[in-house]
Amino acid sequence: MSDIYQDALKMHEQAKGKLEVQLKVPLNESHDLSLAYTPGVAQPCREIAKNKDDVYKYTWKQNSVAVVSDGTAVLGLGDIGPEAAMPVMEGKSILFKKFGNIDAVPICLDTKDPKEIIQIVKAIAPTFGGINLEDISAPRCVEIERTLIKELDIPVFHDDQHGTAIVVTAGLLNALKVVDKNVEDITVVVSGTGAAGSSIIKMIHSLGVKEIYGFNINGIVTKEDYDQYDFLTQELTEITNRQMKRMSMAEALKEADVFIGVSAPDVLTKEMIKGMKKDPIVFAMANPEPEIKYDDAIEAGVAVMGTGRSDYPNQINNVLAFPGLFRGALDVRARQITEGMKLAASYGLASLVSDEELSSTYVIPDALDPRVSEAVAKAVSQKAIEEGVTK
Amino acid sequence: MSDIYQDALKMHEQAKGKLEVQLKVPLNESHDLSLAYTPGVAQPCREIAKNKDDVYKYTWKQNSVAVVSDGTAVLGLGDIGPEAAMPVMEGKSILFKKFGNIDAVPICLDTKDPKEIIQIVKAIAPTFGGINLEDISAPRCVEIERTLIKELDIPVFHDDQHGTAIVVTAGLLNALKVVDKNVEDITVVVSGTGAAGSSIIKMIHSLGVKEIYGFNINGIVTKEDYDQYDFLTQELTEITNRQMKRMSMAEALKEADVFIGVSAPDVLTKEMIKGMKKDPIVFAMANPEPEIKYDDAIEAGVAVMGTGRSDYPNQINNVLAFPGLFRGALDVRARQITEGMKLAASYGLASLVSDEELSSTYVIPDALDPRVSEAVAKAVSQKAIEEGVTK
Repeated sequence: MSDIYQDALKMHEQAKGKLEVQLKVPLNESHDLSLAYTPGVAQPCREIAKNKDDVYKYTWKQNSVAVVSDGTAVLGLGDIGPEAAMPVMEGKSILFKKFGNIDAVPICLDTKDPKEIIQIVKAIAPTFGGINLEDISAPRCVEIERTLIKELDIPVFHDDQHGTAIVVTAGLLNALKVVDKNVEDITVVVSGTGAAGSSIIKMIHSLGVKEIYGFNINGIVTKEDYDQYDFLTQELTEITNRQMKRMSMAEALKEADVFIGVSAPDVLTKEMIKGMKKDPIVFAMANPEPEIKYDDAIEAGVAVMGTGRSDYPNQINNVLAFPGLFRGALDVRARQITEGMKLAASYGLASLVSDEELSSTYVIPDALDPRVSEAVAKAVSQKAIEEGVTK
Repeated sequence: MSDIYQDALKMHEQAKGKLEVQLKVPLNESHDLSLAYTPGVAQPCREIAKNKDDVYKYTWKQNSVAVVSDGTAVLGLGDIGPEAAMPVMEGKSILFKKFGNIDAVPICLDTKDPKEIIQIVKAIAPTFGGINLEDISAPRCVEIERTLIKELDIPVFHDDQHGTAIVVTAGLLNALKVVDKNVEDITVVVSGTGAAGSSIIKMIHSLGVKEIYGFNINGIVTKEDYDQYDFLTQELTEITNRQMKRMSMAEALKEADVFIGVSAPDVLTKEMIKGMKKDPIVFAMANPEPEIKYDDAIEAGVAVMGTGRSDYPNQINNVLAFPGLFRGALDVRARQITEGMKLAASYGLASLVSDEELSSTYVIPDALDPRVSEAVAKAVSQKAIEEGVTK
């Protein structure tokens, strides 16, 4: 692992930034300048001034996304500031280009004030076709995303919340086929109820999972313990642990078919897995060390195991979701990314694994599978049209 | 001209935006993802978190510029809003790339409040190596630029003010050689005292011009008429019309060797030119129709005539300045663009016209002359080092 870090550092220094801007029109002759700049450029300006909507017709807004962060929750590194967040946002931007053919640029903000972040993103919105929020700490990220979705007419999406949820849901759909269980019949334990965990809980709830137990640093999430001051967890109490049980995670797992971890290394033990229902499914996504080591989970009898890592099967990687999701939204000029569109993305992603290919070590397509973005985009754009949220 | 407009419109629609983002590193294999994104990307993040300055070493900040506008003074079209400003800002961004190899992106802002614009530019500053302000109406543009220069440690430059001034000054230096006059001996009339005009006046004053008369819609600028409520014009009264003469532009031109227009079509007549001193120099840059038609100026006996148009000799085109200026500033990590660096840009630009080439129809290099950006950059970076404003 230390080699990867040293190699990455060297690569970043040599590349002098991972992305660049390129011209899509020639600027070789005087006539080229007259078309792309003065005097010709005045004409698209005039048309857009008459009809603001034409900005989609004549500019990169039709295909551009701002990757916005305040650097408060970068990878597992925490609040390292906007400058130190830049390598991640550049990385995200090139993933957008490579897998979604979307022109994304990093926007790292020197403020942590949610109100100010909202105001700034609203102010820069004319420039972009969509906003991808990234690595903003919870619960601020939720407040920021919800307000922006309400107040802007372009898609706003916080990948840390919903990206993982979309891929986990796709993996769960296929894993349930492997073990021959129905969504309606299963019980799921989710470890971690922050940005990603709460979005996962909401998404599998809307998928049809009836019993979900959420765990965080305070133990099991129960209705009595949360009030409006922790609105994010309070929302979860409406759809989890409806009998308000007081129990440890080990006890909860005895009722569970599925464990989903977005928490910390080693919170799951072999013994806890052995106590789970038949053919347990485990998605252990703490990074870089999962909630239980891959080999330990297999030894303990897990039927389907997924992690966030590329060196084991079934990698839950956000890159499977966000490029296609935005591609689909931009293609039909969706005004927002709805819950339905996110679920459509999960189904689109899951459908790429055929019944013949499906196995315990292949419930999720590979991150580099070239079919992914198009399949997700198609599912998302169709859903957007169905729901009438397109321009 | 109408053909250009229709062709430009078609080109903009077909290109779907004039710029795009491209990867500078491969993303073809799993190992590529591990270096450019997780887990490898964590290492440059950690390094920058330890030493903020390393953001220049590992990210595109070393080579990126934001082209920021609020759409209040776009070309000659006025306050057409941020969406309608986009084609110009995209055009500017590709000029940055083509002529300065700088990665520039448009940022069009949905606010006209100077305080808010300042706050937003400060907030996005970690992302960029420089800020190019564009098409923001006067005198707000001056307040915004000055505050940002004071409060940011990256170059901030309002091209509409200083870009034209740099190129006019270069043209003037060479035109004076053609007519064999000294900077110290000439009198200059400047028509238009807004963003561009006031910067031109200050720049030729610091070049050594002793007598300057400024004219605007209220007539000649005199000390008695301006107070702090028009701070921009008030500043000019300190360096123009020191005898506080009351006279028309025709009268002022009788004392003048040079006319510089950044105002409106047809404010200059043949008769006025005939009244000027021997071998008059006229830079008539109102766009698209200059202060006097090219042929009329020549007929009236102008010795050196320049316009903003590409279809006549001596085109005063901002593209001769800003790409090289920012290139030079970024190359040495200048913390700001000083008056000295702007003047160095003028001298660097002027020096590209050799004594053998110099003529009344060639005082300024061609906008597409490939030597321009490098010559300007070199002059600017040397000056920055001399002045000690580099990192």
